[in-house]
Amino acid sequence: MQDNKPQVQEDLERVGVTNLRTLVLTEWKGRKYTFTPKIELTLDLDRKRRGAHMSRLVESITETIEEEIVLRHGSLEEVGKSILLRLEKKHPYNRAQISLETDLVIPRKTPKTGKTTMESYGVFVEVSYAGGAYRKTLRVNVLGNTVCPHAMQQTGGRTHIQRAESMLELETPYDNVIDLEDMVDCVEKAFPSEIYSLLKTEDEIYLVEKMFANPKFVEDVTRGIIDAARKKFRACRIRVKTISQESIHRHDVIAESSTES
Amino acid sequence: MQDNKPQVQEDLERVGVTNLRTLVLTEWKGRKYTFTPKIELTLDLDRKRRGAHMSRLVESITETIEEEIVLRHGSLEEVGKSILLRLEKKHPYNRAQISLETDLVIPRKTPKTGKTTMESYGVFVEVSYAGGAYRKTLRVNVLGNTVCPHAMQQTGGRTHIQRAESMLELETPYDNVIDLEDMVDCVEKAFPSEIYSLLKTEDEIYLVEKMFANPKFVEDVTRGIIDAARKKFRACRIRVKTISQESIHRHDVIAESSTES
Amino acid sequence: MQDNKPQVQEDLERVGVTNLRTLVLTEWKGRKYTFTPKIELTLDLDRKRRGAHMSRLVESITETIEEEIVLRHGSLEEVGKSILLRLEKKHPYNRAQISLETDLVIPRKTPKTGKTTMESYGVFVEVSYAGGAYRKTLRVNVLGNTVCPHAMQQTGGRTHIQRAESMLELETPYDNVIDLEDMVDCVEKAFPSEIYSLLKTEDEIYLVEKMFANPKFVEDVTRGIIDAARKKFRACRIRVKTISQESIHRHDVIAESSTES
Amino acid sequence: MQDNKPQVQEDLERVGVTNLRTLVLTEWKGRKYTFTPKIELTLDLDRKRRGAHMSRLVESITETIEEEIVLRHGSLEEVGKSILLRLEKKHPYNRAQISLETDLVIPRKTPKTGKTTMESYGVFVEVSYAGGAYRKTLRVNVLGNTVCPHAMQQTGGRTHIQRAESMLELETPYDNVIDLEDMVDCVEKAFPSEIYSLLKTEDEIYLVEKMFANPKFVEDVTRGIIDAARKKFRACRIRVKTISQESIHRHDVIAESSTES
Repeated sequence: MQDNKPQVQEDLERVGVTNLRTLVLTEWKGRKYTFTPKIELTLDLDRKRRGAHMSRLVESITETIEEEIVLRHGSLEEVGKSILLRLEKKHPYNRAQISLETDLVIPRKTPKTGKTTMESYGVFVEVSYAGGAYRKTLRVNVLGNTVCPHAMQQTGGRTHIQRAESMLELETPYDNVIDLEDMVDCVEKAFPSEIYSLLKTEDEIYLVEKMFANPKFVEDVTRGIIDAARKKFRACRIRVKTISQESIHRHDVIAESSTES
Repeated sequence: MQDNKPQVQEDLERVGVTNLRTLVLTEWKGRKYTFTPKIELTLDLDRKRRGAHMSRLVESITETIEEEIVLRHGSLEEVGKSILLRLEKKHPYNRAQISLETDLVIPRKTPKTGKTTMESYGVFVEVSYAGGAYRKTLRVNVLGNTVCPHAMQQTGGRTHIQRAESMLELETPYDNVIDLEDMVDCVEKAFPSEIYSLLKTEDEIYLVEKMFANPKFVEDVTRGIIDAARKKFRACRIRVKTISQESIHRHDVIAESSTES
Repeated sequence: MQDNKPQVQEDLERVGVTNLRTLVLTEWKGRKYTFTPKIELTLDLDRKRRGAHMSRLVESITETIEEEIVLRHGSLEEVGKSILLRLEKKHPYNRAQISLETDLVIPRKTPKTGKTTMESYGVFVEVSYAGGAYRKTLRVNVLGNTVCPHAMQQTGGRTHIQRAESMLELETPYDNVIDLEDMVDCVEKAFPSEIYSLLKTEDEIYLVEKMFANPKFVEDVTRGIIDAARKKFRACRIRVKTISQESIHRHDVIAESSTES
Repeated sequence: MQDNKPQVQEDLERVGVTNLRTLVLTEWKGRKYTFTPKIELTLDLDRKRRGAHMSRLVESITETIEEEIVLRHGSLEEVGKSILLRLEKKHPYNRAQISLETDLVIPRKTPKTGKTTMESYGVFVEVSYAGGAYRKTLRVNVLGNTVCPHAMQQTGGRTHIQRAESMLELETPYDNVIDLEDMVDCVEKAFPSEIYSLLKTEDEIYLVEKMFANPKFVEDVTRGIIDAARKKFRACRIRVKTISQESIHRHDVIAESSTES
């Protein structure tokens, strides 16, 4: 039925499965990770075929996952590429793409008391195949804050502060080695201060002082991330977005831009 | 089929429709309102009946809405009671409840420059029937902020500030007249400062000064709302919850309690 | 402070306010509408300016809304363009864009019993200015269903059915007159059957028979919408996405494509 | 500051941290699990104390997690109780509760072709302490489907089918041993058919035939779960809710009830 001619003959860009959750194990720089990512796997569909064989897409995912129990992949992008390679043998495509969206938890030390704290980041990894080449999109979502320099100036030192979230996305050839942790660092350093799950009084004072010494608009944070990412990562299409959850407004403020390195 | 005996004979507490969106028109104190609430309408189902006649529930909603075009209801709770009364003639029940969840937009003046600004609040209104009596639950969700008194003391005047959201819920007999706007006021006044969509520089300075003069933990905000609600509203079961979106942490902090008036 | 030179001198593509909720009144083809849309208003920011004057963006929105009480706009896109024109006098920009996202409720008649029913659709309207020209993006999100033709063939007439959601997006010059209701129609007709909030038994039988007479994959629905949109709307960039919430899987299936008319 | 007398002297029921994400490792019946749950940890606050020492709550979580690297806990509820015990030494409380919300992935075999497939379920585990006793609340969210018996009867064998989600919650003493997998089984067996991420054609036919042989209203599913849970689990307060995402309506239908075993 899927191989029949469809009523409307039209090439489709992306057909497949989405919002699929499964277990993924990786081993990156000697550390083992377990993820339960949300996966989307799609391919292009020729105008002559009515439908994709969806079960073959799912099979490419589950067989790759099963294999992992003995042969652990190095990274989420390696998992993605393995799934695309396996899919190639099961289902014809000209273009295909797989994305995995999950949380990455990184242990940190608090700035003054040196206690262990676990920090979580949203990560999104996409691998795509087209025209004989593999490319990838890497994205991290990191929480921080903004501290209004305008109010600080106007009041002689007081201001409004709020939580902000920044997204850094890099699009680059598959073989360009990029560490998600380095991407997180680029973002964290662009905020007035980094943030932690655990803060003892001494740490909290340190952070508050740092925020007041370093007031930043949402525009400053976005520009700082762009600047750091351009210096750190080669051959990338860079996209940055910061949203600040204003403490004096019901709405948010946003600063977004893109560039290349 | 719905009136057949079910395989498992068990009374069900709440059966009906949920996440239904429609148009509702009201006229409260001379001002006309249009809402597109999310509606849930449920009734109890006897162990002898396999299913509710769901289309009669939807009909009770749509017929009441149609009628509104000529006969405008005074409030969301009046709409809810009208639907329950209409349902009674279509479908037997011992207990029934209807809830409407929507946004309420209230025009305000900015504190210093006196400009018009539109502020939005989440509201939830439920009317329930049981044992011959109608009761209602009214809930407002209001944005504001918290300003840490502990950090302010430790640093000699600096602190972290963040957006916070408080919920005030009242459960009371249907005939107890309560204005949603009064509920919003109780919450807004408990924050270090109220917030606005529009703020010119003069207004912003005023708000920042007010926040620093009035530092509050999430616990202070919740207690302030409880205190104000108990004084303002009679014969109510009161529930309050505040969540503060910490600017120095990835997680939120919460303070929740309930009492009676 | 906003007009100071920033530390990192970088042009920003989009700076502004987002997730702002307010009241909007329109009058389209003689019918009055009230919306409480979620608004995003952004402009480009030159590398020489540290920040946008955010309050001027909000003012452009609130002043346009206030004016509406006497001078009602014809459509959401007209509201958007009015806000961009007003902003131009308050804040310099080369490019600016405003989007309004809301629910549109349309009264319908049920297919067999002819009862009135209210159907809701997600709509998104964006107006953008760049290079001396205004363009717009119109988007509707419509619920329907998919009915698997493959399972129907394999079982001799039985199949799995599920809710599906399709998105149709058109990008076109501002002056190209397009009715959101016509966009909704294009999508609804591409499903195995349209759906209703209210269905009496006779209506329900009609819909079930229609679904079985008209089985469609998610790919069929997407192709049907593309075909209808291309015939109906001129000079548009067309984007279509359908997601089917499979009743036999935990995940969803997706078919997405774009074209031009 | 936290130990000062508050302005409004009012006992608070629940004060603490919420939406905190971290890594949790468990070993249940010989199988190792890694979770990144969303955690809420709260305690009651006396009217004489202005605020809770929030960092001690976070420390109780992070120290328990750190300890896990050498001493793995058996289950999520064991992790929760360890955190409450550790908190007791750091912060006074009369009542405290901790909840962990996460995804549980279970490997399955497809019904006909016997292929391995990974199925994910939402789980919520809360441990609470009050009056000298520990209790727990266990909750699973499971996807399945409903198949309308009314439409099937009216059309002579055709019907509408849709995805449904059921929630089963048990509240019981901490020491009552209950396996989350058994809770999932109770729910899955109450649907017209269970569902899988991977289905080859043979499996799909089997599932479709099973659904048509076994049509169920949302009320039938809820009653089936109640019946199974009451037989399987002793000394529990049982709460069940099913929501069916209707394929012929924009809204959902719901059936909810509670009982004891």
